[in-house]
Formats: sequence, C-alpha cells, structure tokens
Amino acid sequence: MLKSVQDSPLHRIANPRSVAFFGASNNITSMGTSQLLALLDMGYPGAVYPVHPKLEQVQGLKAYQSVLDLPEAPDLAVLVLPTRLVPEVIDQCGRRGIKRAVVVSGGFDEHGDQGRELQQQLDQAAERHGIRYLGPNCLGVAAPHNQVNTTFLPYEARPGFIGMASQSGSFVTQMFDYLDKFGLGFSVAMSVGNEANLDLVDVIEYLAVEPHTKVIALYVESLRRGRRFLEVAREVSPHKPIVALYVGGSEAGRRASLSHTGALAGPDRLYDGVFRQAGVIRARTLEEMFDFCWALADCPVPAGDRVVIQTHSGGPGATAADACGRAGLQLPPVSQATRQKLAPYIPPTTSLNNPVDVTYTKNPLEYLLEMPKVLLADEGYDGMIFYYLVPEGAVKRALLAMGLDPDQAAAQAEAMLEQQAAAIKEMVSASGKPLVGFSFRTRDDAFIRRLQDQGVVVLPSGERAAAAMAALVNYGRLRSKVLAAPWPAGT
Amino acid sequence: MLKSVQDSPLHRIANPRSVAFFGASNNITSMGTSQLLALLDMGYPGAVYPVHPKLEQVQGLKAYQSVLDLPEAPDLAVLVLPTRLVPEVIDQCGRRGIKRAVVVSGGFDEHGDQGRELQQQLDQAAERHGIRYLGPNCLGVAAPHNQVNTTFLPYEARPGFIGMASQSGSFVTQMFDYLDKFGLGFSVAMSVGNEANLDLVDVIEYLAVEPHTKVIALYVESLRRGRRFLEVAREVSPHKPIVALYVGGSEAGRRASLSHTGALAGPDRLYDGVFRQAGVIRARTLEEMFDFCWALADCPVPAGDRVVIQTHSGGPGATAADACGRAGLQLPPVSQATRQKLAPYIPPTTSLNNPVDVTYTKNPLEYLLEMPKVLLADEGYDGMIFYYLVPEGAVKRALLAMGLDPDQAAAQAEAMLEQQAAAIKEMVSASGKPLVGFSFRTRDDAFIRRLQDQGVVVLPSGERAAAAMAALVNYGRLRSKVLAAPWPAGT
Repeated sequence: MLKSVQDSPLHRIANPRSVAFFGASNNITSMGTSQLLALLDMGYPGAVYPVHPKLEQVQGLKAYQSVLDLPEAPDLAVLVLPTRLVPEVIDQCGRRGIKRAVVVSGGFDEHGDQGRELQQQLDQAAERHGIRYLGPNCLGVAAPHNQVNTTFLPYEARPGFIGMASQSGSFVTQMFDYLDKFGLGFSVAMSVGNEANLDLVDVIEYLAVEPHTKVIALYVESLRRGRRFLEVAREVSPHKPIVALYVGGSEAGRRASLSHTGALAGPDRLYDGVFRQAGVIRARTLEEMFDFCWALADCPVPAGDRVVIQTHSGGPGATAADACGRAGLQLPPVSQATRQKLAPYIPPTTSLNNPVDVTYTKNPLEYLLEMPKVLLADEGYDGMIFYYLVPEGAVKRALLAMGLDPDQAAAQAEAMLEQQAAAIKEMVSASGKPLVGFSFRTRDDAFIRRLQDQGVVVLPSGERAAAAMAALVNYGRLRSKVLAAPWPAGT
Repeated sequence: MLKSVQDSPLHRIANPRSVAFFGASNNITSMGTSQLLALLDMGYPGAVYPVHPKLEQVQGLKAYQSVLDLPEAPDLAVLVLPTRLVPEVIDQCGRRGIKRAVVVSGGFDEHGDQGRELQQQLDQAAERHGIRYLGPNCLGVAAPHNQVNTTFLPYEARPGFIGMASQSGSFVTQMFDYLDKFGLGFSVAMSVGNEANLDLVDVIEYLAVEPHTKVIALYVESLRRGRRFLEVAREVSPHKPIVALYVGGSEAGRRASLSHTGALAGPDRLYDGVFRQAGVIRARTLEEMFDFCWALADCPVPAGDRVVIQTHSGGPGATAADACGRAGLQLPPVSQATRQKLAPYIPPTTSLNNPVDVTYTKNPLEYLLEMPKVLLADEGYDGMIFYYLVPEGAVKRALLAMGLDPDQAAAQAEAMLEQQAAAIKEMVSASGKPLVGFSFRTRDDAFIRRLQDQGVVVLPSGERAAAAMAALVNYGRLRSKVLAAPWPAGT
C-alpha cells in the first residue's frame, strides 16, 4: 500500500496545479473544446494553457503556439489530437518538463499495425522523459473535490465518496448524471483507456490512499495484470471495499469489449474466482455496482446474514423478502421478547412475521424511529431492510388540522422532516448495524432527499435493497477470508 | 373471452355511476377518510353517499345514517369498517339494491377461526342478494380514466394502458408514483385481497376486454384457481400480453405472502411451468414487471432474437451487450451491405461491430434517425436496443453560436426536440420492428420526456433494455406455442 496520495503517479493527474491543453479551439462542436469547457465549467482554480498552432485565444484564454513557449512547466498535459501528432507532442511536453499526461486520442493499439507503431513511438517518447500518462483512448479524470474534469461532459453531480477506475471512458461521464439522481458523486473517477502506461491497478493503488474515497468501483472489460491486480486488491479490499462490474463474461460482452478497447476478456467463472480471492464484490449491472458502493460506504459490515424487514405495505415487503431468500439471506421470525417490545406501537392486525408489516400505522414517528430501534436492538438480527413511508402528507394534514395556514404548515413540515431524517440516521448509527432502505419515491420527495443526504441508503426497490444487503454480508465474509489466508507473496 | 366489458361483474366496480361510502369521517387520520378523500381528489363525477351513524356531514358531503336512507341504490359500496360490522352492512346494502362492493376491512380468513366465521356470514349475505365484491382485505380499484380511486393514496400518475390485478393492495397504491416516474399509468388496477368472491382470474377476464388496457400486470402471491387461470390466461395472452411477478417462490417470499393474505404459495418451478403454459411472461422484480409491460404495449413483437445495439458510449453499449448475451439474445455482426449504408454517417474510428459504437458523432440527427433507420431495415436484425444521447446541449450551443439570444435558443431547442422525438417515433414505427431505448437521464430531461410521451420505450439502463427485449422475444415464442397447441378444454 502506498504511504500517501503523493506517492502515486496519478496524484498530479487528479490534482494538477496547472494544465497544458492540446486540441481545444473555438469550434464548439469539437471534442477537445468540449473537454476544455468541462474543465473551465468546473471552476478549475489552476492555470490553463491552451496550445494551438494558429489561434491567439482559445475560449477566452491566451493560447500558445507550442508547449515550449509556456511560462511554466504545467503539472499535466491533456492531448486531444490526431493520433499521428501524439508521439511528437509528448516528446515536446517532456522537453518542457511536463511529467504527467492524459492522452485522449484513439487509434493506437486498438487500430491494427499502424496504430501499434504509433504506440511504440509514444512509449519511447514517454520513457525518454519519464512521463506517466492515462490512455491513450481515454477521457482522463474527474476529480470534483479538486475542481478537475478532463472529460467531455460537465460534472453535474456533487463531489462524493466513490472512487472509480473505468476501462470505458464515456461510462464515467454518463455516470455523472446517474449518481446525481441519488445524491451521490465521485471522489475521483479515472478512465484508463488502453492502459499503455498507467492501468486499473495503478488507479486502485491511488484510490486506496485518496482521502475522499470511501469505496472503489471498477468497470472492467479485461484484467491485463491479473496477478498484480490480485495482490493489490487483496491488500486494499479489507480496508476500502472494491466493487467490480465485469462485462466480458458473455460471448456478446466479450465481443463488445474487444472492439471497444482492444483487450481480450476471459471466461466469466475465471473472473468470478479472481474477484473472490481478491475480496472484490462483483456486481452484475451498473445499478448494482453503485447500489453496492453506496451501502458499503455508508453502512457497517453486518456480523451475519440474519435480516429483518419492516414495511408498511405487504407487496413491497414480500418482494424484498423474496429477493432476500433468493440472495441466501436469512429472515428469522420475530422473537417473543421483541414482540412484546413492539406491542405498544402496533395495531392488533399487524403481521408479526418477518417482514414486520405495519400497513395501518397512525404515528409516523413510531414507524420510522421506535420500531426499527427495537428491531435493530434484537440480537437475533444482523441487519435491517426498511421500506420508507413518506410522512410529508400526514404531517402537513395534521398541521393544517391544528389551524396553521398552508404556508406555515409547509415550512413547519419541512423542519419536522429534517429533524426526523437526522433522528433516523442517529438511531441507525447508534445500533451499529446496517440498515438499507428503499422507497418508490425519489429525491424529488423532500423526505427521501433528506434521508439520503443524512447518509441513509435509500434504494429504488426492495429487490435492490436485498441485493445490497447481500453484498454487505458477502463483503464481510470475503474480508474475513482475505485477512485470514496468508498470501504467497514471494511465489 | 367476454364479449364486452359490461359482461364483467367488475365493470360497475371500476366504473360506478354512484358510490356509497362506509367508514369515512371527519377524522383525517382514519383509513376510511383517506380513501374517501382519494376518490374525491380524483374528481369523481358521480354521486358519493357517505354513510355514518352519527355525522350529518362527512368531508363536506351530506351523510346518511343508514344505507337504507339513500335516495338511490348506488352502483358500488365501499366498506372500511370494523370486521364484525361487515356482514350486517353488506346485508343492508343488498336490501337497498346495491350489487357491487369493495370490502377493505381485514380480519377474515387470514385471522383464524373467528375470522373464518365472519367470512361465512359475509358470504351468506352477499349470496342472498347477489352481491359481487372485491376483497375483503383489499384496497379496491384505481380506474383513472373513469376518475375512480378507492385506495388510500391520491392517484398522481396519468391515466395509462397498464391493467393490473394485485394480491397486495398497497402494492397498487405504491406503484402510482413509480409509474409516474416513467410517464406511465394504470388503465385499471385492482387489489383483490383475500379473493373471497372475485379473484385474480375475474380481473384478467375483465382487463382482457377493458378498452384502455394494452397489457396486463399481475402481482401474484398464490393462484387459488390454477386450472381456470391457465384456461383464461391462454385465451387472453396471445391478444393482450400478461406479465406476472410471483413472490412466493422462495421460502422467505412464501412466508411473507402467507402472513400477508393467508394464501399458501407453491414452488417456484411449478409456477414457472404454469406461466409458460399460459403464455404469461414472468418478471423477477417489480422493475422488470413494468419494464416488460411498457415494451409489450408499445413495441411490435420481434420475428426472432437477433438484436443490434447502437450506442455512443462504449461502456453502456458493452453492458447492454453483456446482458443480451446472458438473456440468450443474438448480436450478429454488421453485414457488409449495411456497413456501406452507414459509411456516410460515421467517422473512420467507429467500431462497426455490434454494438455499433459511434462515440464521437457530430450530428445528432444522423445518430438519432439515419443510422437506426439503416440498422432497423437490415433483414439480419429482428430488433434494436438504442442508447439515447441527449442532444439538448448541442442543439442549444449551436443555436447560440448562430446568434440567437438565450431565450430564443431555449424555445427553439424545445421545438426542435419535439420534432426530433416525433420523427424518431415515426421512423421506429415504420420499421415494424421493436426498438427499446435506454438512457441514464430521466424524464427531468426534456428530450427523454418527449420520446417517452411519443411512445418510445426509454428504460434507465442497458441491462433493463436487454431484459425487456428478451421479454418481447420470449412473448413472441410463447404466443406461437399457445396458438399452436390445442388446449384440452373439456378434460
């Protein structure tokens, strides 16, 4: 494990103090221009030096004819240039003292003999000057805490805690929006492209010590350094969970990834084995990947697989229970002692099986706070899945009935929801057990948004909550195994 | 198959001309009041007669001490009363000439010996007067085209084309919101509860002839009339697709549904077999259920399983391809002839495998219209999965660059997106093949909203698009089998 983030060759790629930009112009439809604009939109605080053979100004910034003319040696060069120009420009960057680059241009190893020759020239130029780079055929980095974004889409989510290494560049950009729907965001996301110089494993090593990163997501089309991946992931995963989405497993996925980055993917079961040995949680879909990241970052690891479900709607409770059953989780019935503790909160028609189904609750606070507190305290359960009712309507109606006018009632309801969300988070944290919530409401709903912003995981369905709980259990098991089994490092 | 919707005992439950309401009051926290308010919120145009032993007015409506006092015999009675009162009130309804009821009250068969005795009394009262009813232990009906909603939540989605029969009542209500996120809605949704009088099969028969219903969704915890279900579903499914979510398959799901409606569920594989024979598509999650309904309602049935994927982002394309592979769909490579037809639209670096990956397209119209037109016309493909880029930003920037002011550009962009969405729908319809789209953007995005409103299926991920395409293929196969195999009706 690296001692600090400064020890990684990726540090000044994610956190450059200044950037030389090749390939941007005043033509807004060009890729390079979109990428420069994304960086500027981010409010990047360092100096940006566009390099352009003809223009004096690029997007309002002074442009330089050659990198050799720059007033300083920037920390990072971003190249969005025709393939044939890349080796020569990297050489010039080296001569100017630049040590890090993002090579966006494609057309290298993934494009036959001519591409391979250009790749060799690029390798030689980089080696000559000790330049480490991401790519080629990548989009570089989004590091919102540092206000850095070299991709072609504006970073619209908040700075977050998910670190990502992706063998698809545009995948990273498309996820900006996706994460924002849940109030999530990237800490640092890197697109590794053809991995000619820096690869997935380098990014994992970097993210392992990157302080904003609580969990690491991998989009994998193939592992080029399988053995090193295993070593590094085993070291990192017990401390910072790693979740991988591997798409090369089916014949169709394999063909898609072959054409995409030129790498050959391996059989599904081989990758299953590698991930398991490495302590890496595998996701089957991108929705699962980020669901799992969220749960692993915000929930403690459960001691076992015994789950209790609380719901105020039989159907959603049953779908969650069914998904738990399929995922191999246990749903023990509610004990006599716990039934007695719940008695004050429940009408006599309540089902006291598991799921605990309180369809006709009258007091939202009992449903949201008192009952889960009792259930989480039960030693027979290791974790909880919770269906969130949204009390906004009930709260408002009650306030109106008390004689408040609509504006007062709305403001008062807002304040109460805020308090309730904070109290729920505190109650869950104090339990020391994971609670994974779900609701069919989204962040458009004030209560769901507040819960999520407090750090309560609220997923869009019971099935997804069950899968995330199973990932937590799975992570706990893998972690024990990885920590227990000595790794034959020297063999 | 029924000749018309009037022949179903459910017709006047979904479309009553007047309603007697038992159990509502001026206490806004009571269940009955919430249900009455939901009906009134819907703008229900018929007469509503609250019946209450003491109150003169209920929620602003004149209340009646007894159903016998009503000025007419309403088409429907809704009962939200203590269990022990229900048989007697049903008897009174019968004496007043009411023929249809929704019995919301629980506490019958699902609550031991005492409950069973009350159920017998209820049966006798209903039979005496020829009353047909939904429930007990249900929420009744949401029929937004008729402005009817007897459930306890306001119906906030639009009137739609998904007919639903659910063995969970609150499941129906929770889905109002879920469907609205996709611009979908129910035609008629019915909660069947304990199915003492009218059951899931009756609802299927009704929905089969209900004119707003294009597809039927079933939430199943157990089939009480397996044989009749098979007969009816086989008759209906070739003409109106049926999608079922069955949650009783796992031990945990079974226990949850047992406590929920008192019905015993059967093994997963048995239900798999029944659904297959009946031509019913099975969904594993509620998200799948509505994804499948949407695709089956809005897309033609593909002739085979050969799919082409078009994407402008390698990662999402690869995840869709991988999911297609796992779902058993074929992804044949792009033929030489089709490559030539695509040549004008693609940069030389484009991957012409399948997925067709056009990462750096400059002209959104070529990407959105010309290329899919060529691919859909290829006889080697039976259907298409399409990753939607959102051209709004590009369109606006181009308009600004042409010198329009921001307001003009925004208005102009809106109009262009509207035109594009309409042109896309027309192009897809003309092809005669199914196109299932996906995007990580939601209806918050103007373009996605317009596409969906035009009737283009746009799902939230490539995996879900692949699963929906597989459901279309599967439906086509099941339909052929059901139509080909004679059913031993007399045996």
